[in-house]
Amino acid sequence: MAVLGPNRYGKAETRVVRVTRHGDAHRIKDLTVSTSLSGDMTEVHLSGDNSAVLPTDTQKNTVFAFAKKHGVGMIEDFALLLARHFADSQPAIHHARVAVEEHAWERNGAFGHSFVRSGREVRTCVAHHDGTRSWVVSGLRDLVVLNTTNSEFWGFARDEYTTLPETRDRVLATAVDAAWRHADASQDWDKTYENARGALLAAFADTYSLSLQQTLYAMGTRVLAECPGVCEVRLSLPNKHHFLVDLAPFGLDNDGEVFFAADRPYGLIEGTVLREDAPAAGPAWE
Amino acid sequence: MAVLGPNRYGKAETRVVRVTRHGDAHRIKDLTVSTSLSGDMTEVHLSGDNSAVLPTDTQKNTVFAFAKKHGVGMIEDFALLLARHFADSQPAIHHARVAVEEHAWERNGAFGHSFVRSGREVRTCVAHHDGTRSWVVSGLRDLVVLNTTNSEFWGFARDEYTTLPETRDRVLATAVDAAWRHADASQDWDKTYENARGALLAAFADTYSLSLQQTLYAMGTRVLAECPGVCEVRLSLPNKHHFLVDLAPFGLDNDGEVFFAADRPYGLIEGTVLREDAPAAGPAWE
Amino acid sequence: MAVLGPNRYGKAETRVVRVTRHGDAHRIKDLTVSTSLSGDMTEVHLSGDNSAVLPTDTQKNTVFAFAKKHGVGMIEDFALLLARHFADSQPAIHHARVAVEEHAWERNGAFGHSFVRSGREVRTCVAHHDGTRSWVVSGLRDLVVLNTTNSEFWGFARDEYTTLPETRDRVLATAVDAAWRHADASQDWDKTYENARGALLAAFADTYSLSLQQTLYAMGTRVLAECPGVCEVRLSLPNKHHFLVDLAPFGLDNDGEVFFAADRPYGLIEGTVLREDAPAAGPAWE
Amino acid sequence: MAVLGPNRYGKAETRVVRVTRHGDAHRIKDLTVSTSLSGDMTEVHLSGDNSAVLPTDTQKNTVFAFAKKHGVGMIEDFALLLARHFADSQPAIHHARVAVEEHAWERNGAFGHSFVRSGREVRTCVAHHDGTRSWVVSGLRDLVVLNTTNSEFWGFARDEYTTLPETRDRVLATAVDAAWRHADASQDWDKTYENARGALLAAFADTYSLSLQQTLYAMGTRVLAECPGVCEVRLSLPNKHHFLVDLAPFGLDNDGEVFFAADRPYGLIEGTVLREDAPAAGPAWE
Repeated sequence: MAVLGPNRYGKAETRVVRVTRHGDAHRIKDLTVSTSLSGDMTEVHLSGDNSAVLPTDTQKNTVFAFAKKHGVGMIEDFALLLARHFADSQPAIHHARVAVEEHAWERNGAFGHSFVRSGREVRTCVAHHDGTRSWVVSGLRDLVVLNTTNSEFWGFARDEYTTLPETRDRVLATAVDAAWRHADASQDWDKTYENARGALLAAFADTYSLSLQQTLYAMGTRVLAECPGVCEVRLSLPNKHHFLVDLAPFGLDNDGEVFFAADRPYGLIEGTVLREDAPAAGPAWE
Repeated sequence: MAVLGPNRYGKAETRVVRVTRHGDAHRIKDLTVSTSLSGDMTEVHLSGDNSAVLPTDTQKNTVFAFAKKHGVGMIEDFALLLARHFADSQPAIHHARVAVEEHAWERNGAFGHSFVRSGREVRTCVAHHDGTRSWVVSGLRDLVVLNTTNSEFWGFARDEYTTLPETRDRVLATAVDAAWRHADASQDWDKTYENARGALLAAFADTYSLSLQQTLYAMGTRVLAECPGVCEVRLSLPNKHHFLVDLAPFGLDNDGEVFFAADRPYGLIEGTVLREDAPAAGPAWE
Repeated sequence: MAVLGPNRYGKAETRVVRVTRHGDAHRIKDLTVSTSLSGDMTEVHLSGDNSAVLPTDTQKNTVFAFAKKHGVGMIEDFALLLARHFADSQPAIHHARVAVEEHAWERNGAFGHSFVRSGREVRTCVAHHDGTRSWVVSGLRDLVVLNTTNSEFWGFARDEYTTLPETRDRVLATAVDAAWRHADASQDWDKTYENARGALLAAFADTYSLSLQQTLYAMGTRVLAECPGVCEVRLSLPNKHHFLVDLAPFGLDNDGEVFFAADRPYGLIEGTVLREDAPAAGPAWE
Repeated sequence: MAVLGPNRYGKAETRVVRVTRHGDAHRIKDLTVSTSLSGDMTEVHLSGDNSAVLPTDTQKNTVFAFAKKHGVGMIEDFALLLARHFADSQPAIHHARVAVEEHAWERNGAFGHSFVRSGREVRTCVAHHDGTRSWVVSGLRDLVVLNTTNSEFWGFARDEYTTLPETRDRVLATAVDAAWRHADASQDWDKTYENARGALLAAFADTYSLSLQQTLYAMGTRVLAECPGVCEVRLSLPNKHHFLVDLAPFGLDNDGEVFFAADRPYGLIEGTVLREDAPAAGPAWE
């Protein structure tokens, strides 16, 4: 017989821009917010009885109303505020998950009212609340980095399908997708963000790399070292291959100068680095 | 102190097209294959010692070589073949995950050598092998469906942020993303695929819907009913909102005739339907 | 001194779905409509005086209102109706351009109210009206086709950078982007569409190809032959390279069996075929 | 009878990364290059005789080889070099068009070998050469800007489909797509780029806007004023609507604080500003 398993529902990708006007120097926060709720949802699945269902339209309205009432400061605080509101205010809702992405803007010159999208990486967070406890994971994506040297790849396992030559010098490039779990839901999120971002960039640059896995691990440990409140780091690093072009047919050498940047396929290195005494993750990564 | 947690690595999105030429009526299979391996990978992370690492380039080569040696029949068989090869042939590899997407083509008229990309949904599968056991999940994505009637939404929970009016007739549209877990790794995959696809389409059409959750549950139970070898179904259904346009300012009524198809935000309904006696999922969904 | 050159403004990508309900067998038309107007627009550019500017919001409203009032039949008729309305009803507007894309749906089984997005190519048109004359270009995009044989490429020009080997048998694949200009603005658009689409597919399949240019020209001439009301055809054909994988290192031959489907770079072949006596195009292609 | 009209062919989107290594401070240039050739191409279309066709594979090779031999400095120079090479070295090629996009990177900290993709706008150029004359258009795209105030929209034309209220204060946002034609093919491209970019940003910020057309014209004239070698500017400005959210149902006012950033539809304002004495454009904009 069929039974209902895990389920949730919500409003995905509400695009909200919050403007704050203090004198002539305005501020903007540009977010994409996704909310998911779960709880006593058996009836709506079995019979279509919606009495436990707070509409996704209401969730969207709440995002906009909270942006007004509470302002938008650090995205983790905004996500927690929403998650706690949903889980605490509706009896049938036992768990809320709120994901926020922040798109960065810079000032356009000295003008207080004019901004340029910075094109920096996207800052991310996911907050969970179950009525009692909260969990927060922060992160970033689309931080694209490249090293022109200090990367080797040799000594790997071989089988009958292995043709890759060993290399003592290659371009190493990736688009960092990183997330770090906080030991508790009360942190200086902005400071942690800048420290974690700085740790990722520094470790990518100053690790002499024998494999992208080694770089990944160095990046994860560096975040833990720089961010005391972080207990676990997850990284997903596409190996964005830059192939050395063979110019010999044209009578030219190519000593690490001209590369073809390939789209697909790409390597994909995924890994976790955590403190030995990290608390259980609970639903933090869901 | 930092420790290494779960990790894997592989080659993502290898695009392989396999042509079979029997007389004048050729056949093509068009796949995107992603492989991920895990096992004794501590050393490569800590010291960059690659001796346990079968290069992702080798994984790509293997995909192409297997497409030649074994042909490409049903994608689940091809994924299992690869997963078993990787997990069984390398002592340091304890687990392999292979994901395959199939892009459908139709014959171009009566020509045996000419094809048209069909634009049907993408067929998907993920196979796991740990050296002993295998797991297979099949599915599809981008199956876009729409009902012009037989959908209501009312009787929902309300709070101070609820403004949505109740409706007794609305357009219901979604892009089905479905995956079904097989009870064991030996099935008639093609037959199951057609049965599951048919069940999803029929249940979407003939469920008089009071909420998208109800439709989701009906779709999941229908797949279980039609596919004896399937033990669990997971569905992710974006509610692709079609808003009735207010034409009253132009002296026109709009009795379910003209809709604005919105991009974002969208509702997102996710749920699982499984047999009461479904075996444990193990790593199947990872 | 700076002067204002050509300019236009409008509302892009209005997504409108029109449902028609005759008994239980409903019909849907799913369009993306973009409108552009031009005329006496010097003042709005120089001083911001908007008195000649019909808001883009009004243009969007008009699309929705016309979908109700006039229904949506063939997209060329709908585009002409809108173009003539804008150019004829506003004294400052001297020229209107309306582009429409149609997304195809099929019936979901025997249900009169349920539909599946077909994933067929996108049907397109652009209509112009200048108050007196009208021009219509119809077309399609994303019609992806592939031949497994009957394609060669040899005898090409060579220079010091040429390394490509000649081939007497290759896979030929492209995503057809085609547009055909009608000799006048009164045609059976649907019939022409099916004839043109059929001509493109048949010519792609039955042309023994020595180059993609030859195939392009054959496709264009076939459209002219099959569609008496068409006076000019423009084609843009990306050469979607399918590279034969070298399997020799694995002791395998590869006699046109296993291909790597590359993303970038790709060849791009663009060309025009027209009747000798085609009337002047005027603004039709803008 | 059918005849061949305008045509061209080439290799699109070759992704080339050029590394220069002077001591420890490396430099990288990251380009996407598209080449198109035209000339005596009747035979290849009519009979498949490729003797006039320099393969697109050769064009790709040439991009890589030139990146090695000549280095990559300013993209306009690189594009001109390629265009002249193709048009001058093949007797059947009478015209070459080369388009280059440059993706910006910044140094990753103080490391000479490590870089971060900057996410700034994409810098673009298109160079033409016909064997005698050259034309160069430079530009940028994806420069996303937003003003929180100093934008009004009122006094516009009205008809029966107009419902838009007038506003004396709105958010104005766009993604600038700009191109400027140089009076001749010998300029300080980098200096012009920085001046044009600065002019676009400054004019967007300090123009008190009564319509986006007015802002467009101010941006174009500012570029002409700041860049003596530029004779024509073309701008395509999507009006990225930010709608004020109605918070009244929640007992909240919204005095320009909370906005919904909409995806589609969007306004689209396109216009040209040129010098009165601008030379004829020839094929520059093709």
